[in-house]
Amino acid sequence: MKLASLKNGRDGQLVVVSRDLTQANDASDIAPTMQAALDEWDVIAPQLAARYEMLNAGKAESFAFDQSDCESPLPRAYQWLDGSAYLNHVELVRKARGATVPESFYDDPLMYQGASDTFIGPRDAIVAVSESHGIDMEAEITVITDDVPMGVTADEAMNHIKLIMLVNDVSLRGLIPGELAKGFGFVQSKASCAFSPVAVTPDEIETWADGTIDLPLLVDYNGQPFGKANVKTDMTFHMGELVAHAAKTRHLCAGTIIGSGTVSNKFEGGEGKKIEDGGVGYSCIAEIRMIEKIQTGEFITPFMRFGDTVGIEMNDANGQSIFGRIENVVEEYDA
Amino acid sequence: MKLASLKNGRDGQLVVVSRDLTQANDASDIAPTMQAALDEWDVIAPQLAARYEMLNAGKAESFAFDQSDCESPLPRAYQWLDGSAYLNHVELVRKARGATVPESFYDDPLMYQGASDTFIGPRDAIVAVSESHGIDMEAEITVITDDVPMGVTADEAMNHIKLIMLVNDVSLRGLIPGELAKGFGFVQSKASCAFSPVAVTPDEIETWADGTIDLPLLVDYNGQPFGKANVKTDMTFHMGELVAHAAKTRHLCAGTIIGSGTVSNKFEGGEGKKIEDGGVGYSCIAEIRMIEKIQTGEFITPFMRFGDTVGIEMNDANGQSIFGRIENVVEEYDA
Repeated sequence: MKLASLKNGRDGQLVVVSRDLTQANDASDIAPTMQAALDEWDVIAPQLAARYEMLNAGKAESFAFDQSDCESPLPRAYQWLDGSAYLNHVELVRKARGATVPESFYDDPLMYQGASDTFIGPRDAIVAVSESHGIDMEAEITVITDDVPMGVTADEAMNHIKLIMLVNDVSLRGLIPGELAKGFGFVQSKASCAFSPVAVTPDEIETWADGTIDLPLLVDYNGQPFGKANVKTDMTFHMGELVAHAAKTRHLCAGTIIGSGTVSNKFEGGEGKKIEDGGVGYSCIAEIRMIEKIQTGEFITPFMRFGDTVGIEMNDANGQSIFGRIENVVEEYDA
Repeated sequence: MKLASLKNGRDGQLVVVSRDLTQANDASDIAPTMQAALDEWDVIAPQLAARYEMLNAGKAESFAFDQSDCESPLPRAYQWLDGSAYLNHVELVRKARGATVPESFYDDPLMYQGASDTFIGPRDAIVAVSESHGIDMEAEITVITDDVPMGVTADEAMNHIKLIMLVNDVSLRGLIPGELAKGFGFVQSKASCAFSPVAVTPDEIETWADGTIDLPLLVDYNGQPFGKANVKTDMTFHMGELVAHAAKTRHLCAGTIIGSGTVSNKFEGGEGKKIEDGGVGYSCIAEIRMIEKIQTGEFITPFMRFGDTVGIEMNDANGQSIFGRIENVVEEYDA
């Protein structure tokens, strides 16, 4: 099934969305919010699924679904952990500064605890203090879990994945080196993220298997195709492995969101290529800059400026948008 | 006023607690949960304050308050950020491994995004997979904010501090070096934290001024006094500065918790001393181990073992417990 949260108060109003994303049904009689649904998922999910079937059959009360009316599916969450499952991305970042990737990175996922208190909506503006902060998008897939017990295995973790979303993990590249040098992760160098309008159950995705999706993640930038990297290709850790990593020493609460990290494909074993040059492009600007630096010695493509727009979406084999479209314009913060 | 959350569902039941911590009044008619109160603090706080005055005057319905019935005041939160305001602690850690503290650490606070989805209750057990993970307490003060706008100054930030608590920021020292080396902060190396039974408004603390408290934070370990470091002494950044640091590039949602980091005092300009040797002791085991390492070349005091108990509390000038007592025993996880 497909679920969304319409803008309404701090936590939104839960709606069931038709498979083709055209119609929605107010599901707040079943659970008022997405978090409330996740808190009692075993009881609530079957009721939502029944409503979803009726909606798709044209037998439920419905209204036109407008993605612009959406909050992120969880407008705020108790936990957002972002992995870095695409080592190609890490390899490029390191190569650009003449460093290698430690062997352990291939067995032990990189993961950071992200800010989950103020997600922006899928069509909201990225509000930033300064272009000098190096504003960048990161297109990723994410999962939402139910309650996950400490010490879960990667296989068991797969059963705790209840919903899937896309995310734009907005990064402030200019602030990252300073924070990474301190070793305590990202605080100021990550802005509020935007998730896809719709969260879907794994059974909605034909190519969901083994904790990944065999489909390209489409990124456009100022109206031009920018990335179409395949989520499955070159993924070092699958989503079940990332959930298990997060739960090694703690239980995870229902509603925990875990991200894949920036999707990144090698290109013919090499460093990646722009779409216009026949490659699959990029899921963030930092990556193309790293390739420029490796190939020419200079960073060429600038980070996002006020007024720039990024779009993120994923289509099924028939061209139907699965999660709806993230579209964020960058705006200057007016304090 | 003083507030607590009794164990009841995932988010607890809001109660007002008498100043002397003996009586409580069910406040769920005003706001069902602590988060609900924080979401509309300007409207809710005056109602809770009125109830608190009646309770202290013996004019409100009440029942005996039992700290063991409490969840952490926010049983789960949308954000928990922990600073490191006591550079003495950082200096000792670095000195023990022969490194110095970068100059920037004195202007730019260390802060990490912590896990906020599964806090344990103030009297709950710390459940750990293995003693080899190096289980340690960290005694700190923390504040809860209302909505904080991006770019707030440290002075303005002081007005957004609505409640104050203590915390035991449970750390798994054996896992920290590996995670810090990756640069992405703490994920597996922090277990679920425990907060004090009671959260109090700043006006309840006579010595709250300039974003700190001029009182010792009392730590006991297996029934023996272990620490009594003064919160104000040697604090490099005050709580308003830490809130402003967190809000530099993002709005913070009401209910954001920000911690001071392990309270740590120098002793006569030197490295600190045990209470039994006339010093103020320590707020975590790691610190005494660092001093042992510096002085003898060896770590001597072991980290916590299954069955060990840590207590954390703060008394006012009259010996009255302000926040109630955190008391956590360490237990082995039975998967």
